[in-house]
Amino acid sequence: MQRLYLIATGGTIEKVYSERSGSVENLDSKIDRYFRMLRLPDLQLETTHLMNKDSLEMTEADRQQVLETVREKLKDPAPVVITHGTDTMVETGLLLQRSLTGLKYPIVLTGAMTPLGFEGSDGLQNLTESLLAARLLPPGVWLVIHNQAFPIDGVRKDRELARFVQRKTTQGTDERR
Amino acid sequence: MQRLYLIATGGTIEKVYSERSGSVENLDSKIDRYFRMLRLPDLQLETTHLMNKDSLEMTEADRQQVLETVREKLKDPAPVVITHGTDTMVETGLLLQRSLTGLKYPIVLTGAMTPLGFEGSDGLQNLTESLLAARLLPPGVWLVIHNQAFPIDGVRKDRELARFVQRKTTQGTDERR
Amino acid sequence: MQRLYLIATGGTIEKVYSERSGSVENLDSKIDRYFRMLRLPDLQLETTHLMNKDSLEMTEADRQQVLETVREKLKDPAPVVITHGTDTMVETGLLLQRSLTGLKYPIVLTGAMTPLGFEGSDGLQNLTESLLAARLLPPGVWLVIHNQAFPIDGVRKDRELARFVQRKTTQGTDERR
Amino acid sequence: MQRLYLIATGGTIEKVYSERSGSVENLDSKIDRYFRMLRLPDLQLETTHLMNKDSLEMTEADRQQVLETVREKLKDPAPVVITHGTDTMVETGLLLQRSLTGLKYPIVLTGAMTPLGFEGSDGLQNLTESLLAARLLPPGVWLVIHNQAFPIDGVRKDRELARFVQRKTTQGTDERR
Repeated sequence: MQRLYLIATGGTIEKVYSERSGSVENLDSKIDRYFRMLRLPDLQLETTHLMNKDSLEMTEADRQQVLETVREKLKDPAPVVITHGTDTMVETGLLLQRSLTGLKYPIVLTGAMTPLGFEGSDGLQNLTESLLAARLLPPGVWLVIHNQAFPIDGVRKDRELARFVQRKTTQGTDERR
Repeated sequence: MQRLYLIATGGTIEKVYSERSGSVENLDSKIDRYFRMLRLPDLQLETTHLMNKDSLEMTEADRQQVLETVREKLKDPAPVVITHGTDTMVETGLLLQRSLTGLKYPIVLTGAMTPLGFEGSDGLQNLTESLLAARLLPPGVWLVIHNQAFPIDGVRKDRELARFVQRKTTQGTDERR
Repeated sequence: MQRLYLIATGGTIEKVYSERSGSVENLDSKIDRYFRMLRLPDLQLETTHLMNKDSLEMTEADRQQVLETVREKLKDPAPVVITHGTDTMVETGLLLQRSLTGLKYPIVLTGAMTPLGFEGSDGLQNLTESLLAARLLPPGVWLVIHNQAFPIDGVRKDRELARFVQRKTTQGTDERR
Repeated sequence: MQRLYLIATGGTIEKVYSERSGSVENLDSKIDRYFRMLRLPDLQLETTHLMNKDSLEMTEADRQQVLETVREKLKDPAPVVITHGTDTMVETGLLLQRSLTGLKYPIVLTGAMTPLGFEGSDGLQNLTESLLAARLLPPGVWLVIHNQAFPIDGVRKDRELARFVQRKTTQGTDERR
């Protein structure tokens, strides 16, 4: 039985439609409902609902809290999947990469462009991929989404295309846009 | 084969999630995609995509346009279903009732609390009900939603409960709230 | 609050896919799970899981049991919806019509061509329609499916088209096929 | 852009419910419809609909045809995913492993316990996992299902549990059951 830590921080993947406000919001965590749609007979999932925020509203203190939570979990090492808003997922991932050394397992960040359970959502696809990638990837910090696994320091969000792409680098310069 | 006019005006039922803005909006009509999920072997549906507006943004001119469209259709009489935002659905219905006389078929207004295709949506239920109600109800203007058919002059939206309820009347006074 | 009796007898609408046998079977009743997808704020549904049979395997004793159950319920009159296999739904309906007199509410039979929850299923559509039709139709025995309400003595299943159609009659002769 | 060969052979994952026979059958390929639900912006999928058979009905000639098709594709090497009935998936996989040498990419076999699009189906999960595993796994023949990746010579189906499990070996003996 494979143990795996799942840390939920919110983001689009967990947004719900509020009938009262007529808008999509991070209200309650709904990710567990979607895990129940997956068959995971050999996975022991230990879920932490850390926060439920749009990642544009995450502060440095929030990111530190993610880091501390991961650090705490890794005292008893196992792969980690973090669900996160896509807008600042890379920032959080880079913080983890800078701060954590000697990783024995991968840390996978994922999220969604459209909330879980909305028509056309990529949420369940990304969860499914991340739970498998966390078993197959080598140690390190990764972003897994849309059938791709990116090392965290080589990826950026392309808002126009609603996807993540390889970050271009020229002569060692990080052309982050 | 039963003919039926479907007039789409927008409202929550047709809202979509925009990945660019992260909000729900009335962008393109999507109702036809959902009709294709229904089996309607004896129904000849003639759909008019009149406008695509949140009903709180509908003006009196918009409502007049709905009325004129219905009047135009009824030159060749058949039942009518109008999809509409729930917030001012009753206003539009009352205008139709005041303005149209000698109806030979029912005019049914419907909508949804959560957009079609979002988890927990009531949209397809309400469409299904309205298409049947338009065949079974007597002439008049009706609001059909959540397994209920209300005469338009006896109904109001209860925002707290996210449903429509019978409007209370005391001694002939219309206690509209 | 409208009371309504729901009597489940099985049929395709309640079939499930058995992973052990690789076939579709009437095992456990699943209709309640689908009712929970509908918003029925003004409906008090009293469900009886009477049997769970393919209607080709229903015996005359089974049909009598349906009749007796309806008779028992109608001591406290309210509309009735019966979910039933489509192959012999008309036979059961005709038995009810012959046997019950002085009906105060409609009795609606419905079912599905494809089981609830299978891609392309008509099950939830037919349930939705039947629950509304039971509130709108005059007393009598009806078959409600695919946006149509048929008097039970004027309908037959067209297996080729996977739908129900008006039974043709010529000069009083019942051309039942 | 990652190229990937998808070879569809049928099996439960592609079964459909036939309204005419009331049974589930391998009629037409439906896998493409489900691929369109996935976001695969960096994947160039080349699909071959080779056959559409229940894997209990696959003959040795059928398995040879699968082998020849893979051999043909690998002239221009890329990862391969084969959708297949679960009952004899391991046999086909072992044939591929014995017959193909010098693999540069993984060959992934997958399938489902319940057909794509039926309530509770594991089909889309397994497709999603396989398309990612084909990018992440080392060369070799693999079976990917239910969040697990098994080397083909170490796995067997457990029919009771409706899952695949590690094949037990004692003192070098292959206790294949």
